[in-house]
Amino acid sequence: MDFKMSKRVDMMKNSIIRQLLSLCDSPEMISFAGGFPAAELFPIEEFKKASIETLDEDGRKALQYAATDGYPKLREHIVDIVAKQGIKCNIEDILITNGSQQGLEFSGRIFLDEGDTILVESPSYLGALGAFRVYNPNFVEVETDQNGMRMDSLEEALEKYDNIKFIYTIPEFQNPTGLTMPVDRRKKMIELAKKYNVPIIEDSPYGRLRFEGEILPAIKSFDDEGYVIYLGTFSKIFAPGLRIGYVIANEEILSKYNTSKQNVDLQAGTNSMMQLSKYLDNMCIDDHICKITEVYKNRRDLMIRMMDEYFPENTSWNVPEGGLFTWVTLPENVDATELFKKGIARNVAFVPGEPFYPNGGHRNHFRLNYSCMPEEKIEIGMKRLAELLCEECK
Amino acid sequence: MDFKMSKRVDMMKNSIIRQLLSLCDSPEMISFAGGFPAAELFPIEEFKKASIETLDEDGRKALQYAATDGYPKLREHIVDIVAKQGIKCNIEDILITNGSQQGLEFSGRIFLDEGDTILVESPSYLGALGAFRVYNPNFVEVETDQNGMRMDSLEEALEKYDNIKFIYTIPEFQNPTGLTMPVDRRKKMIELAKKYNVPIIEDSPYGRLRFEGEILPAIKSFDDEGYVIYLGTFSKIFAPGLRIGYVIANEEILSKYNTSKQNVDLQAGTNSMMQLSKYLDNMCIDDHICKITEVYKNRRDLMIRMMDEYFPENTSWNVPEGGLFTWVTLPENVDATELFKKGIARNVAFVPGEPFYPNGGHRNHFRLNYSCMPEEKIEIGMKRLAELLCEECK
Repeated sequence: MDFKMSKRVDMMKNSIIRQLLSLCDSPEMISFAGGFPAAELFPIEEFKKASIETLDEDGRKALQYAATDGYPKLREHIVDIVAKQGIKCNIEDILITNGSQQGLEFSGRIFLDEGDTILVESPSYLGALGAFRVYNPNFVEVETDQNGMRMDSLEEALEKYDNIKFIYTIPEFQNPTGLTMPVDRRKKMIELAKKYNVPIIEDSPYGRLRFEGEILPAIKSFDDEGYVIYLGTFSKIFAPGLRIGYVIANEEILSKYNTSKQNVDLQAGTNSMMQLSKYLDNMCIDDHICKITEVYKNRRDLMIRMMDEYFPENTSWNVPEGGLFTWVTLPENVDATELFKKGIARNVAFVPGEPFYPNGGHRNHFRLNYSCMPEEKIEIGMKRLAELLCEECK
Repeated sequence: MDFKMSKRVDMMKNSIIRQLLSLCDSPEMISFAGGFPAAELFPIEEFKKASIETLDEDGRKALQYAATDGYPKLREHIVDIVAKQGIKCNIEDILITNGSQQGLEFSGRIFLDEGDTILVESPSYLGALGAFRVYNPNFVEVETDQNGMRMDSLEEALEKYDNIKFIYTIPEFQNPTGLTMPVDRRKKMIELAKKYNVPIIEDSPYGRLRFEGEILPAIKSFDDEGYVIYLGTFSKIFAPGLRIGYVIANEEILSKYNTSKQNVDLQAGTNSMMQLSKYLDNMCIDDHICKITEVYKNRRDLMIRMMDEYFPENTSWNVPEGGLFTWVTLPENVDATELFKKGIARNVAFVPGEPFYPNGGHRNHFRLNYSCMPEEKIEIGMKRLAELLCEECK
């Protein structure tokens, strides 16, 4: 028995992170590898109240099938939430998905034929790369600097390649680098999208997790003609276990996302959508966001302080203004994948950088997460890591 | 602004049922069109109790990310549930999906390249056809009779076509016909799968909703070599709003479903999986199934009685032994899609048969659902329908 599968199967990769995480199960392990929010900050009691109210008030509806586009009241809340990033939209412009990961998958499904080109930040989120890779595109990596994707490199790529289906970007606290694209680049990106008639997939899971300064307007907020497809999620500002994300796009494009949703799983969970919506009726999500960003800021501060103090001089790192991650650069001759194995042996874990580059290479980087680790563990873990780096980075 | 999308987009169709249902919103309308379970039978109080316990006992876990394959305790319950259909499996053989619809989509994703052949019952479930159609296969319709798919026609097709990627079947209370495949055909299907080295996708959403006679062993129960990929769901025996279904397959095949799940949306909702699992800890699902099948049986009995009494002599219908649907055959010259429009004008709805045939034609059938309609409405609705049929079927 050896069934013939689709060619697509050869493109499917298991997430390196999920594989690595399976190595991090030991109780001694201090892992900076995942991208989990801090579970101790989940508003469990408030959510329980919302769950009870939902089932008491309209249990039949909560357990029944619902329309594909998602619970209308939840979409009303999303209209308000994204208004903080300057986005003006109506509930008709929103589709509820299973986390923003499903929005990424639909973007591949809707736009990509084999060999089509897509432009992505170098490095970029590996979950997005995995979702797109199944459609076998040509990944063109656009150079980044401390302000995210470089617009001159983007324009060069837009000039150079045919059949570009979209630009994929994470403008705030990017995964994996933690870097943020300033407003002038956001405006420039819209200009370029118009000039070359290429849509932008704006992935904004962390945009609201800002530790200092003002929330920046989303790229979508400068888009009055439908060039931007915006992906959002409640995974980082509320909790990922519900699997509630969303796509915002203009009518014609969103209709393809809606049909995709119908074809692949009909709808998001009715109960989860209604419970979350009820929670948002009862509580102020901005207060909750304040609470978690305060904790994450302290953890970032500590992690950066530990690096300043203990990391060898020939290493460098980004100081993110928000989000969950920082990104470390090693001397060119040091291989972070090899370092990862040595780290595991010393009970400290991170994600090596190479899988974030769709075309490979760049082995001298790694990603660190600070959101889901108490401070005393950050201290111990960073000391272990620093010790290792001092030995290996000579 | 007119973006170039993938060729795949041309294959995407909105579900005709979901479109039709949008026409059925009037309070006067009596709709036999949907495939909804009866919301008044949902065990809301018991589920609320399970939700509270889940959040009290392990709220942090319930709201956090979880492993892709799904909550282990829920998979343990599934091992027990499918044992009633004679399936022997371990939790490692099970992946939790967003309803069985996602299992169908993954089957397309994993097996189908453009132009590959798949063998389906004629007629077949249109949600499956929609999921597969995106991959642009060659649909070969296998003849059915009152005992479901005919094994002689299946073997003919297996002989005739190259590049057959799978056989898709709904063996019990099939959607749309309501018919059931007897044990001898199930065994024969496994034999043929082995002989021609073709996997079987066994879709069993209704298998436990049996009104009379014994539960039949699943095709999977006769499979000791991994030829069958079994799709199950809690949508019909519990509630569809949670979007919890599952795939059972041998290790090598299931690993592709797992990777697909990771790529498209990481995992099913942690909270939903844990709440359902807790409900199954607390309650006996078989008791609940008994309760709903008793109600559905009465509704089926009434619908069949109404047809016996009022439908014109040149129409015929199936008498399902379980499940949600019956299937009506009209004289060949009567077009059920035209009839549907006339039905809507008289405030009675059903689903015309043609979309259940992947290659079209067969316009003289329609599907009736009896599960989600109280008896007094079944009476009124069936009289309206009978009146229309008496006028149109001359």
